[in-house]
Formats: sequence, structure tokens, C-alpha cells
Amino acid sequence: MERMASRDRFSFVLFKPQSAGNIGAAARALKNMGFDDLRLVAPGTMNQREAVAMAVHADDVLATATNWPDLASALADCSVTVGTTSRKGGYRSTAQPLRAAALELAALSGSNKIALIFGREDRGLTNRELKLCNRLITIPTAPEYPSLNLAQAVVVVAYELMMATTAPAADSAARQFVSASESDAMLSRMADALVSIGFLPDDNPDHIMFSLREILGRSGLTSREVEILNGMARQMRWAAEGGSETIAAKRRAGKKLR
Amino acid sequence: MERMASRDRFSFVLFKPQSAGNIGAAARALKNMGFDDLRLVAPGTMNQREAVAMAVHADDVLATATNWPDLASALADCSVTVGTTSRKGGYRSTAQPLRAAALELAALSGSNKIALIFGREDRGLTNRELKLCNRLITIPTAPEYPSLNLAQAVVVVAYELMMATTAPAADSAARQFVSASESDAMLSRMADALVSIGFLPDDNPDHIMFSLREILGRSGLTSREVEILNGMARQMRWAAEGGSETIAAKRRAGKKLR
Repeated sequence: MERMASRDRFSFVLFKPQSAGNIGAAARALKNMGFDDLRLVAPGTMNQREAVAMAVHADDVLATATNWPDLASALADCSVTVGTTSRKGGYRSTAQPLRAAALELAALSGSNKIALIFGREDRGLTNRELKLCNRLITIPTAPEYPSLNLAQAVVVVAYELMMATTAPAADSAARQFVSASESDAMLSRMADALVSIGFLPDDNPDHIMFSLREILGRSGLTSREVEILNGMARQMRWAAEGGSETIAAKRRAGKKLR
Repeated sequence: MERMASRDRFSFVLFKPQSAGNIGAAARALKNMGFDDLRLVAPGTMNQREAVAMAVHADDVLATATNWPDLASALADCSVTVGTTSRKGGYRSTAQPLRAAALELAALSGSNKIALIFGREDRGLTNRELKLCNRLITIPTAPEYPSLNLAQAVVVVAYELMMATTAPAADSAARQFVSASESDAMLSRMADALVSIGFLPDDNPDHIMFSLREILGRSGLTSREVEILNGMARQMRWAAEGGSETIAAKRRAGKKLR
């Protein structure tokens, strides 16, 4: 059965936040917009009182915020992982503008747990973290000064998601995607396979894998689709290990391959 | 003649702001969203250094912010004066939701100077100030906790006004997808390649290709991405035709593959 867009299914993940004030302000922003799941990945040492002061009446969101040792574990139960970035170019050139993304995410929230990931104050998310994101979004800004304060980025994203999940009839693409860990396992099999057929250099497979990860991440994969891609990877390795001779022989003999 | 919507014609007015951090954060929010006119009405005594720290690279907006003794004088040159409120009822029952208001204000900005007015941190705008506003807007929030931090209210309003004053084309021009014919050509190369490695049965490749077409179609591909997929297909065929022996040999010889 198709489920409704739901704010309960969004988590806000702050990666290595350094300022207590920002964490408190982010908690307040979440509560203002009707969200409550705040996750902190390896936060810096900080003055808890400052966070409480900025949270004001969102002390409950702050008190139930969870701590995680690394980004992968914070995202493990989410099937849609959305990185936020203000920079352009390179890996980031396909980042989707916030408003359009919010409508899609609202539709997906009926059947998926969704994480929004915000980088640390001074440097945002690096390419290392982006690899754990299956989508990227960007908050439109003036080109002269695109870098938002962390808590301000959180409130703008939360606001757009609230608007999108409140919108009448968030049309619901009810597909349920696989979890980040299943999708990562498939991508790592695919990388091995692509190295084995000589498509990826084995000393630096990341560059092209990043694009593949993004293509498949934007798409959102069901378990059946992940099975197909796993099968493709398996078959590439088999072909690379000389299986192709068997294929050619069978074909010459007029037999069915599978 | 009608003039274009213009961000130059918006002023952001903070009425009796008490926190230096909020003023700095508001300056940053304005610059992030392409605005630069910040007006302070009877601000409390405050630590200027704290404001500068929160403004970061919006120090110019902060430095050119103007001080006014009362709200009437701060609004004197504006023809559209917009109060912001999170409370409902009484005078406030006609407050328009931000998004709809932003579109109207963008249209009005061609021929009007427009002021957005934000009340003090602890009590917002009182009825006394509301009388100087010819419109009221409200930022939609969760009913449990409608009161936003001052600087966060500023960034959300500035964001909506920037979205409304930006031509729709600019927002959606993010990615340009390849044509259907380019994408079809790639899929047909991919199908041949997958047959060659024995993944697809050559008598009926369509069933699984349908899924691949769907995965890639949902994603939407750029030309660079199509090139990568074409390269993958080429390399699969090469591996299937025995190229893998060459790879293995090169690897044994410790050479780079590509």
C-alpha cells in the first residue's frame, strides 16, 4: 500500500559540527519545521549550555539527538542519503536545487527513510563524505557568497521539506529503495568487476565510480534492480577470467547461454 | 514601463534587535541570498565583535547597515512595508503565507521599495509596530513551536524572496540531459556488450534491458555520463573477446592498464 509523505521519516545529520550554538539552533529549526531526528557525527568538544540556550524550546530535540562515531553508521538505516553542498563543479555539478529535490524527497518519504547530511562549518562535506551520499542538493544562493551558516542551511532545508511534505497530495512514488549498505555492497562489487575487465584503473577506481554511484543514486534502486546489477558485476568478472571463451564455444555449438 | 523584479529594492529592517550574533547572522543571510540593505531600529547595546564574527564574509553588509531611532523613520522611503509574525489571530489573522507573498512582492519590486520588518527576539512585532506595516506575512511552521530564531526567520524570508526574484529558468537549468537518441544508442551498445559477456541471453535480451533502461532513465544522464557508460560497454566487449588475458598479463607485468 502506498504511504503518505511523512516528516517522521527524515533525519538531519550534522557531520563533525564544531559549534554548540549551531547544534542548538539546528535543533530549534527542526522543531520549528516539525522534524525531530537530529544525529551528530563525531561532534567537537563543546559547551552544552550554549547548545541548550540556542535550542530554547527545542530542548527535547537536543536531548534526544544521537551521537555516531562515523557517517556510515549514522546513515545505516536510511535508504536515501542526501548530501548538501554549496560548492559547484567536479563531483558536485549534478547537485539538484533544493526546491525540486524537496518535492521528490517528500514523495519518497512514504516508503523510505531519508537522511539530510550537513558538513562541518568551515569546510562542508568533502568528497570522502559525498561518497556515502546517493544524492546531492544545493541551496540556491547569490554567487558572491554561497556559503551559509550551518544552522541557517538546516532551517532553509527543513523549511522546504516542511512545505513539500505539507503540500496537498505529495504524489507518491511509492518505490522502496534498498538501504545504503546494500547499495554500497553492490557498488563495491561493481568496482571490482570494472577493474577486472580493465575499465577502471586498479590504482584509482574512485573517479569514475563516483559518477556511477551518482547515476544510480539519483535513480534510487529497488532490491530487484540491485540484484540485476550484482548479476552484471558477477558476469563481468566471469568474462574477465576467461569465461568468454566458454561463451564463444557454446555459441558456436548453438546452445542457450543461460 | 514595467521594471524587472529587483533585489536592490528590498530592505530588511530589524526592530530593536538585542543579540549581536543575530545581527551578524542576518547580515550573512542577506548576502547569501543577494540582498544588502540592512536597517537596525534602536538596537540594544551589544558587542560589535560578536556581530562581525557571525557575519563572516558579509562584513560589508554589516558595515553599511544603517541605524534608525524609530520604525517610522526606517520605513520612510518604502512604499510596501511588510511585517513578519508567527502568531495568529487578531490583527494578524490576515497574514499571508510567505511563499505566496514572496511572489507578489517580487512582482511589486519592479516599481516599489519594499521593507521586510522583523521584531525583537523575545516578543516579535507588537500591535504598535504592526500598524506601520501595510502587509503581514507569516512563515509556515509546525504548530507546536512556531517561534523562529530572528536570524533564521531572516534567512528563510530572504531565501524565498531570492527564489521569487530569480527567473525560473535559472533554477531548473541545473543539468542538461542527453537526447533520447544518444541515450538509446548507448543502451543498444550496452545490450550488445551484456550479451557478449553472457549476462543477457542473445535470444531475449529485452527483459533485463528494460530494467536497465528504467534505472538510467529515472536518473537522467548528462553527456559525460553517457560517455562513461559507452566506455563501460566497449570494455566489456573487449574483455569478452579475450582482452582479459591481456589485462592479466599486463597486471602480472605490473603495468598501468590505461
